[in-house]
Amino acid sequence: MAEGRGVAILVGAGDAIGAAVARRFAKGGYTVCICRRDAAKSQGLVDELAAAGHHIHAFSVDARQEAEVQKLFSDVESNIGPIEVCLFNAGSNVNKPLVETTEKLFFKAWELACYAGFLVGREAARVMLPRGRGTIFFTGATASVRGGQGFAAFSSAKFGLRAVAQAMARELGPKNIHVVHLIIDAGVDSEAIHQRMKAAKGIEASEIPQDSLTKTSSIAEAYWFAHQQSRDGWTHELDLRPSVEKW
Amino acid sequence: MAEGRGVAILVGAGDAIGAAVARRFAKGGYTVCICRRDAAKSQGLVDELAAAGHHIHAFSVDARQEAEVQKLFSDVESNIGPIEVCLFNAGSNVNKPLVETTEKLFFKAWELACYAGFLVGREAARVMLPRGRGTIFFTGATASVRGGQGFAAFSSAKFGLRAVAQAMARELGPKNIHVVHLIIDAGVDSEAIHQRMKAAKGIEASEIPQDSLTKTSSIAEAYWFAHQQSRDGWTHELDLRPSVEKW
Amino acid sequence: MAEGRGVAILVGAGDAIGAAVARRFAKGGYTVCICRRDAAKSQGLVDELAAAGHHIHAFSVDARQEAEVQKLFSDVESNIGPIEVCLFNAGSNVNKPLVETTEKLFFKAWELACYAGFLVGREAARVMLPRGRGTIFFTGATASVRGGQGFAAFSSAKFGLRAVAQAMARELGPKNIHVVHLIIDAGVDSEAIHQRMKAAKGIEASEIPQDSLTKTSSIAEAYWFAHQQSRDGWTHELDLRPSVEKW
Amino acid sequence: MAEGRGVAILVGAGDAIGAAVARRFAKGGYTVCICRRDAAKSQGLVDELAAAGHHIHAFSVDARQEAEVQKLFSDVESNIGPIEVCLFNAGSNVNKPLVETTEKLFFKAWELACYAGFLVGREAARVMLPRGRGTIFFTGATASVRGGQGFAAFSSAKFGLRAVAQAMARELGPKNIHVVHLIIDAGVDSEAIHQRMKAAKGIEASEIPQDSLTKTSSIAEAYWFAHQQSRDGWTHELDLRPSVEKW
Repeated sequence: MAEGRGVAILVGAGDAIGAAVARRFAKGGYTVCICRRDAAKSQGLVDELAAAGHHIHAFSVDARQEAEVQKLFSDVESNIGPIEVCLFNAGSNVNKPLVETTEKLFFKAWELACYAGFLVGREAARVMLPRGRGTIFFTGATASVRGGQGFAAFSSAKFGLRAVAQAMARELGPKNIHVVHLIIDAGVDSEAIHQRMKAAKGIEASEIPQDSLTKTSSIAEAYWFAHQQSRDGWTHELDLRPSVEKW
Repeated sequence: MAEGRGVAILVGAGDAIGAAVARRFAKGGYTVCICRRDAAKSQGLVDELAAAGHHIHAFSVDARQEAEVQKLFSDVESNIGPIEVCLFNAGSNVNKPLVETTEKLFFKAWELACYAGFLVGREAARVMLPRGRGTIFFTGATASVRGGQGFAAFSSAKFGLRAVAQAMARELGPKNIHVVHLIIDAGVDSEAIHQRMKAAKGIEASEIPQDSLTKTSSIAEAYWFAHQQSRDGWTHELDLRPSVEKW
Repeated sequence: MAEGRGVAILVGAGDAIGAAVARRFAKGGYTVCICRRDAAKSQGLVDELAAAGHHIHAFSVDARQEAEVQKLFSDVESNIGPIEVCLFNAGSNVNKPLVETTEKLFFKAWELACYAGFLVGREAARVMLPRGRGTIFFTGATASVRGGQGFAAFSSAKFGLRAVAQAMARELGPKNIHVVHLIIDAGVDSEAIHQRMKAAKGIEASEIPQDSLTKTSSIAEAYWFAHQQSRDGWTHELDLRPSVEKW
Repeated sequence: MAEGRGVAILVGAGDAIGAAVARRFAKGGYTVCICRRDAAKSQGLVDELAAAGHHIHAFSVDARQEAEVQKLFSDVESNIGPIEVCLFNAGSNVNKPLVETTEKLFFKAWELACYAGFLVGREAARVMLPRGRGTIFFTGATASVRGGQGFAAFSSAKFGLRAVAQAMARELGPKNIHVVHLIIDAGVDSEAIHQRMKAAKGIEASEIPQDSLTKTSSIAEAYWFAHQQSRDGWTHELDLRPSVEKW
């Protein structure tokens, strides 16, 4: 059964942003459904939050498969509770010279970061519209607003996701569903980026200047803030970057 | 003497947004300095917050006069406490066909909404830089990002203010001063707009659809959120509009 | 054999914009290759331009099929001449409420307006890079910069195409390949729109206010202008709308 | 007397962009009125164009003085001919840390780049509106769309000018007056920049990489193109940068 405030479903929720949003919304009284390719990878988080008395579930889902997404939303609504909050957070950064960008890479980048976002956002809208309330989050990036060199595939997908978020916000806002697009113009402080920085530049995690990467908890607070807004004043888009970031 | 968290100075702080931000930051532990053309007009607010045990001061200032702005910041720093938060909120909307826009109107719109913002932002930076911390807010509007028909004067001033905010954010961010530009894409729920709607369209305040104007408390919460962000993830720009707004 | 100035290949070239660009670049001394799903539909244009002494060819191609696009570019380069100019103009406007937007519609909109654009742009780059010159055009729309209500699918595809154009411009500009994104913020004066206006609103073509739709020849002139720019001053993006358009 | 096509008045027309636009529009059949602080500085250009059989006049004007601008437009209309084209090109780049930006510098930057632009644009509209036709150009810069570090004053003025151009375009378009904002995202190839590059970095003009600065003639061609557009397809904004520019 869901906690009093209902369900927050987090799709494309890995160990970084997804886990932080899970902690924040669990703390805020929501039953959290973590959804990723392999739910087993979130077992640690599930154990942690359950031990703290929170309601949490993990689902394995391929968000690029319409049938899987629909089954996920149906299962959660039937078995766990009403979905009040939905985060779409999938997407995989990639940088390649144009002529080395295979059609497969271009398709995969779009399928994961944009198409799956459309599927998830639409299914969220379908369950929220009859209840006349809900919040839908999309995670954006610098590439959502700038088509940088080498980013034909990734920025095309992220631009496309931003359009989905805008169109949804304009259609669903008057129906009391709050759609938010968060532009993270930063590196996200995570195990993954630490490994990339070490591999690429030999930089140890301990050598990364403090506060030069955006913490996942800061991202989670931004989503929590937007979710708390009353409907007379909703934010659709906001950026987030470290104080030291060049932009 | 200032309360523990220091001073929040609010310039161009009238009975709508200014008063709401005053209440929010007083509640948050800041000594509030309300600054407007005629401080006497804020006496009610001063009494209200003082009665509730908050520290609040009101100053008469013409923010378009460099000497007055400099004296204000100097007086507050000397007599009240360190300025940790600064809001610039002045500006007066006006819509005129281009050929009826006098040079005086164009100048006045700019002087109040943009030039005064530069003066206030710069003085805030001057006191914050040596301490290496602070938050500076600028209130924007739809006209900050769209030069609509009849808005040559007002949107020129608001575009100009947005540029000041951007340049300040890029320069001051690495020095740990957080600069925020809030785009209010909405009518603001206030006595002033109620009177305008009645005068222009005969609409009584009681007839205005609920939540179709943005409440000043919602604006104050957005500023409070931004101020609370840790410096690994700062928002520079965010929008705010009612769920029902067409945009 | 190509005329002296080389080949202009126009992909997604129908009877409206495609035909107008064909006429303009034929007049400018280019051999024109019209490429669309069914080349037979351009027979009238081929006859017209050939009769006027121009070099013109029509190809049937499905631009969403990588192998077909690669064969097209290879055939043109081998049998006709060096591709100096490439236009990608495909895309099909569609407006649907979000929950009625099928995954098929979303995919099809993207496949035609964005994915095919990537394939065409990349193949153009591949033949132009070794020669160190060329011009690549992408046709944009209002939906390229605004995710309007009901346009989740179409604007997502057009945003995505704009990102491809930007990333290509930043990568290929220094290699002397000029990438242009033209935002047509207007209805395009064409047989198709006349029929839609009649069907939807009962408006006869003769009743449409003069110059309220953008002529395909005006679009062609914008492309011709951009192509003529010397490389010390290239335009990447420009808009185009009728004088009477609200925006 | 004006040549057959009427008058092109160029305000803030120095030896770089102003002179190039003068040459282009003289060649295009317009009587050119060059207007700058000191008309004597354009004597060489006047002699050059007059010797080539063109109609050209030079006026001394301080475009920041309403009375002078109004007298200028009145004199030209009375004594020379109908103003069909107007360019506003004044503005002086400046980069200063925020706390070193004096109120005088901030005011002067605005007065020259924005306020004068409003005055000139409005007077142009006043003479064009009764005739129901005309073209008005505003020269923008990178700073028109980005408030970069150190550019609080200059970008504030250029953002403000862009708003004026947008508001004018929306109001005057339906009245058949074409308003264009050209964003020059580049250094402009001119004597002034050569001197600055030598002073700042010891780079001789002969050492500047070919085509890395935008030629004034390329800028003039962009304005000429926009002026030639038929009103079913007008460009309001376009960018211009060298192929090698990073952006």
